[in-house]
Amino acid sequence: MKITCIREATAPIASEIRNAVISFEHMTISVVAVETDVVRDGRPVVGLGFMSNGRYAQGGILRERFIPRILNADPASLVDEANGNLDPFAIWRTFMTNEKPGGHGDRAHAAGALDMAVWDAVAKIAKKPLWRLLSERFNNNQFDEHVLVYPGGGYYYPGKEIESLVAEMQGYREQGYKVVKMKIGGAPMDVDLRRIEAVIGVTGSGASVAVDANGRFDLETALAYGRAMQPYGLFWYEEPGDPLDYRLNAVLAEHYSGALATGENLFSATDGGNLLRYGGMRADRDWIQLDPALAYGLTEYLRFLAVVDRHGWSRRRLIPHGGHQLALNMAAGLQLGGSESYPGVFQPYGGFADNITIADGYVRLPEEPGIGMELKTVMFAELRKYLELA
Amino acid sequence: MKITCIREATAPIASEIRNAVISFEHMTISVVAVETDVVRDGRPVVGLGFMSNGRYAQGGILRERFIPRILNADPASLVDEANGNLDPFAIWRTFMTNEKPGGHGDRAHAAGALDMAVWDAVAKIAKKPLWRLLSERFNNNQFDEHVLVYPGGGYYYPGKEIESLVAEMQGYREQGYKVVKMKIGGAPMDVDLRRIEAVIGVTGSGASVAVDANGRFDLETALAYGRAMQPYGLFWYEEPGDPLDYRLNAVLAEHYSGALATGENLFSATDGGNLLRYGGMRADRDWIQLDPALAYGLTEYLRFLAVVDRHGWSRRRLIPHGGHQLALNMAAGLQLGGSESYPGVFQPYGGFADNITIADGYVRLPEEPGIGMELKTVMFAELRKYLELA
Repeated sequence: MKITCIREATAPIASEIRNAVISFEHMTISVVAVETDVVRDGRPVVGLGFMSNGRYAQGGILRERFIPRILNADPASLVDEANGNLDPFAIWRTFMTNEKPGGHGDRAHAAGALDMAVWDAVAKIAKKPLWRLLSERFNNNQFDEHVLVYPGGGYYYPGKEIESLVAEMQGYREQGYKVVKMKIGGAPMDVDLRRIEAVIGVTGSGASVAVDANGRFDLETALAYGRAMQPYGLFWYEEPGDPLDYRLNAVLAEHYSGALATGENLFSATDGGNLLRYGGMRADRDWIQLDPALAYGLTEYLRFLAVVDRHGWSRRRLIPHGGHQLALNMAAGLQLGGSESYPGVFQPYGGFADNITIADGYVRLPEEPGIGMELKTVMFAELRKYLELA
Repeated sequence: MKITCIREATAPIASEIRNAVISFEHMTISVVAVETDVVRDGRPVVGLGFMSNGRYAQGGILRERFIPRILNADPASLVDEANGNLDPFAIWRTFMTNEKPGGHGDRAHAAGALDMAVWDAVAKIAKKPLWRLLSERFNNNQFDEHVLVYPGGGYYYPGKEIESLVAEMQGYREQGYKVVKMKIGGAPMDVDLRRIEAVIGVTGSGASVAVDANGRFDLETALAYGRAMQPYGLFWYEEPGDPLDYRLNAVLAEHYSGALATGENLFSATDGGNLLRYGGMRADRDWIQLDPALAYGLTEYLRFLAVVDRHGWSRRRLIPHGGHQLALNMAAGLQLGGSESYPGVFQPYGGFADNITIADGYVRLPEEPGIGMELKTVMFAELRKYLELA
């Protein structure tokens, strides 16, 4: 059993949206295919992966460092004999050979795309959906039959702030979502408060509305928004300050009694552990959002779960960023708290399989082997096109 | 005044050395040239830069993100009218447009190379050596006439551990260095202790010997080495654990009373601030080694200096990693504690200008405009070759 070829390509994931910090007009992602000599249904198994949005394609790192290391390795060293499968941990160690510790940025995103493709291949070789494989290998056969999802949206609409935002949120509710999320910090606070109140008008309760500052606030602003938003009883208040400013987060947690959420811009188990050590996060209410498709993949996320366990936190406090089917599989098979979803943006990568319906804010998972890439028709066609797959 | 062209290339910086964690056999760096329409001595000013070793070339990030953003900007927005020069801060903000917060890895190294070339151009346009320009702009015209340097070396020599190491160290002493540095953690502790004692045999005192574990140790091993090395009175004990494991560092600092040094694998002012907040570093003896040529450049380092000031630390506790002339200029012009040097490895980028001599562990600086790239003949020839400069 061996990997016969690894393809990578840069694909556009441009949107006209912007958050409080960046425009997504020129955003790209890396897509990856890991081809094997294992045959299923008469065809070689090909694992597919992509990185989450917001950090740009990483073709240089994939082509110059990660892919050659895998292809130059002894194929036998990458096989999991016990399971008769590829060994994603050995493959991860191999592509990270001669990489120094620290510096968890673009390299982590490249690894996220590659590791996703590896796990997709592993699940397909095992003839199981990834959520079931994870349940069996890492969760004592326990899994969730449905997963909490919320749409990552609520962007700014220059000139039509309230009207277009309300329409977007009504759309999510009609699609079956219960909790919705919106951006803050890209407008003056009084405008943001009117936007939040308009969205609460759609959901009927602040408890179904999350807000996301995308790391823009300094401490003073974070506290001011906290004071102003406290009465709304929001679902969460996300990434108030710089993702690495653990003290800002800890001070805010002393003053804002509602739930905080952060972590989408922390890209390793070590950084995630620092958030738990220093960030003042409260185990009974706050949420951690590390994204496996940006942070060295599922393989690293399993290491982060060990950190979470050592801190005595429940995995139910973890809701990965990214809105991809990898996170959805992980949420079900590892019994996390839920998964982000992108029904309206970052197409065609946002959202789940075509035949999946949202009911009361939850989704069920497909039974097909792998992550489910083939079940999202438009995305699968785009992956095939950019990766030049037969 | 404008930037007319930016070139980048990948250059080899391979060595047969290894530290405790990685091999440098396939190591590369990015080199950058920023060409301007400013004429000095009858030729257009070209700023030159490169990233430090250990983290691989970052051509993808330079070509796909940073360089187009600069070349697409309004040239007038990149000019410092007050100084009649390019504005390195405006250029930095421009190439970092639409980059999310956090994730300080490969992107920071790409920025380090590019920002170095920008500052080289700025100093050349100002007709001053960079150290003098920094002194005038940011240090009340104060500067150091000579700078403490130490050679980053002391690698492993499979099969000739003691003999070759002693010869290497004798060479450094003959070149005029006083403090020398050696790797630890790549062999069993008893072998490392024999190696340290052999080097102390060369220098005559542990106070002139620094040791570097390159982030390899867990807490237990870091403490064990600390206990064993305490009697030597070493110059410093560098990067004992994972660079982001601030608690390991803090716990070690409670048990090891000698000097600690770390920071070469922290790549932003925010990460450096976390080291000061959480790492247990002691303002009277420890050393911080952030490397501007890996960590978003001199521009970001000036932000880190503001963090250092806010923590009440002296800039004399800062000795940048990297062994390049940028750090040497910064050490003199901003009155830092010193600079690493690579007289023997990472050629041709290691070491300083050809005509610079080391005396009693200190070097003087040249008076030529810029960083001094042209004064290191072999390196300059290599930069010209890879960057296809006229």
